[in-house]
Amino acid sequence: MTEPRIIATYHIASDADRIEQRAQGLAIEQSVECPLEAIGDPAILDTIVGRVEDIVELQPGRYAVRVGLAAATAPAEPGQLLNMLFGNSAIQDDVALADVALPDSYLAAFGGPRVGLAGIRALTGASQRALTASALKPQGLSPAALAGIAEQLARGGVDLIKDDHGLADQAFSPFAARAVAVGQAVREANAASGGRTLYAPNISGTLDDMRRQLSIIREEGIGALLVAPMIVGLSNFHAIVKEAAGLVVVAHPAMAGAVKIAPPLLLGRLFRLLGADATVFPNYGGRFAYSTDTCRALAAASRDPWDQLNACMPVPAGGIMLHRVNELLQFYGQDVMLLIGGSLLAAREQLTEQASRFVDRVASHGQR
Amino acid sequence: MTEPRIIATYHIASDADRIEQRAQGLAIEQSVECPLEAIGDPAILDTIVGRVEDIVELQPGRYAVRVGLAAATAPAEPGQLLNMLFGNSAIQDDVALADVALPDSYLAAFGGPRVGLAGIRALTGASQRALTASALKPQGLSPAALAGIAEQLARGGVDLIKDDHGLADQAFSPFAARAVAVGQAVREANAASGGRTLYAPNISGTLDDMRRQLSIIREEGIGALLVAPMIVGLSNFHAIVKEAAGLVVVAHPAMAGAVKIAPPLLLGRLFRLLGADATVFPNYGGRFAYSTDTCRALAAASRDPWDQLNACMPVPAGGIMLHRVNELLQFYGQDVMLLIGGSLLAAREQLTEQASRFVDRVASHGQR
Repeated sequence: MTEPRIIATYHIASDADRIEQRAQGLAIEQSVECPLEAIGDPAILDTIVGRVEDIVELQPGRYAVRVGLAAATAPAEPGQLLNMLFGNSAIQDDVALADVALPDSYLAAFGGPRVGLAGIRALTGASQRALTASALKPQGLSPAALAGIAEQLARGGVDLIKDDHGLADQAFSPFAARAVAVGQAVREANAASGGRTLYAPNISGTLDDMRRQLSIIREEGIGALLVAPMIVGLSNFHAIVKEAAGLVVVAHPAMAGAVKIAPPLLLGRLFRLLGADATVFPNYGGRFAYSTDTCRALAAASRDPWDQLNACMPVPAGGIMLHRVNELLQFYGQDVMLLIGGSLLAAREQLTEQASRFVDRVASHGQR
Repeated sequence: MTEPRIIATYHIASDADRIEQRAQGLAIEQSVECPLEAIGDPAILDTIVGRVEDIVELQPGRYAVRVGLAAATAPAEPGQLLNMLFGNSAIQDDVALADVALPDSYLAAFGGPRVGLAGIRALTGASQRALTASALKPQGLSPAALAGIAEQLARGGVDLIKDDHGLADQAFSPFAARAVAVGQAVREANAASGGRTLYAPNISGTLDDMRRQLSIIREEGIGALLVAPMIVGLSNFHAIVKEAAGLVVVAHPAMAGAVKIAPPLLLGRLFRLLGADATVFPNYGGRFAYSTDTCRALAAASRDPWDQLNACMPVPAGGIMLHRVNELLQFYGQDVMLLIGGSLLAAREQLTEQASRFVDRVASHGQR
């Protein structure tokens, strides 16, 4: 019986006459990481050493190398999976991880989004239209001031309000005080308006810290949370997903890098696999230089059918302005949540009205 | 009173006529992350918004930008510090984090290496000479087979034996069985030879997983551990450092990337600050393309005097062969631990003799 292999695709810069050797080096680097002559056991050579499946020239001097990695080396433990996919090669300047095909056992083990795109629609009551999100900023504001902003955004009808990812557990805004104050403001605004705005406080720190923060979220009846998987570590991220049943888990791209791991793979596929219900990513045409192709592929990776996994909500963000709503909904379709932070907040005293304008523009798209 | 600022140095690719704007954008990105007109509170504009300290042209089209970040936004919590230093900018293709100067309060809060370079010398009895290390490979071997390799390396007199960073908690080599078997083999070899070889099992997974593994390390009287801070998350890495008092904590560079955060800063300074006693990094002239300048700066960052912090042992690795020992000791000096893995293991049945040759060559350096 042949053991299943993980098929990892790497893009490598190389001369044509060295690519075979580079590819073989990569297969060794990401598996046994030692010269083959140091291996005495033929079963290891046969089943554990990475195997170059094929090499395709993408353009002169640039190649796609597919490597089969033994699933036995990377059991369904998120950090170890990342380690075996890219741990050492991430240190090599001219290698990027472009794609991964995983045996089905990983899908069953990790389980993907618990709430997922459809669950977010159900929770917010947005059954068909695209969704809206905004962020609590700037850092330095007190919990009361952030709660005031949240109240206005909720009254404007935004579907999801997330903490700025820079809000952690600082003296000017301790996590507990902020979650309680903002949670209450959103709850009251919902009660007054009949709305169903979700609030996602940003959890961070050690797994212990995140658990303490999660228990506050539960106590306050808050429906969502934000977390940066590449900062807290993929293993701890997935541990939180498993403990956050019923809550919407929103993944933030901080430290997720620009090019070494293809964004559709990391922010789309891997975060989804590990249970992100929504994934925030830099929109094209903003300040992060993601291309339209990258954004299209990332959205597809997060929500296109993938075995039994729930879809994950794509959340483009980063310098989006109101006047781009129609363009973006044409680009992404309706299964999307647009996140506008700073450019809403610039409305200051007219924040509720500006949020309401955002919400109306999204809701009315395609109805004319 | 002026609040202390973290001074972060970024390298940016930019046209000369846009660099001022890019620098200002970076200062905002890594602090309030919103348009300044969205900020109503003058105290936030004054104390929280990042401040461009200066801009220096490194070469045409490439600039060093120093940004003062408010310490209040990044309390002494490792993940949040990384988030505020580079969280969003890491997503921008043309920005690298080159250097950081931290207020003294961070040094006191994080504390740096607990055992440190001097402690490793004391534990191994290597009072003056450079030190030696090797790795247990390949993946796929059973605990008993790995213990056999460890025994030979210990009998050869290697100072530190670490797990291959790919060894986690796999079916072919579960953590507990491996740590027990290898720990016992090294203990017995030490007892027979009078040596003091340390063993560093690789801990991984969630913080819970790592604690379970740490307790096995304690129970078995093992003296060290290996961990990849960028995979487990800096916060959890530092939590383990605090719980591993008396043990040698060796940091592995997996997923630490090649260029986005300068290696001397991340693998040298930041890992040291958070408590790594030894830091493994890719040696120059090997397969990871680090330059001699990078390696020199990394070694300096890990061991040069830095306030009250203990020195961290630099551990160059990655394809080092025996014939390079003298060259490398001339390059790094004696405060170094050379790690040779694969090219020792290729000796197979003569592993003890080959390890002994490695140890002798390091010990005799400079004595002729």
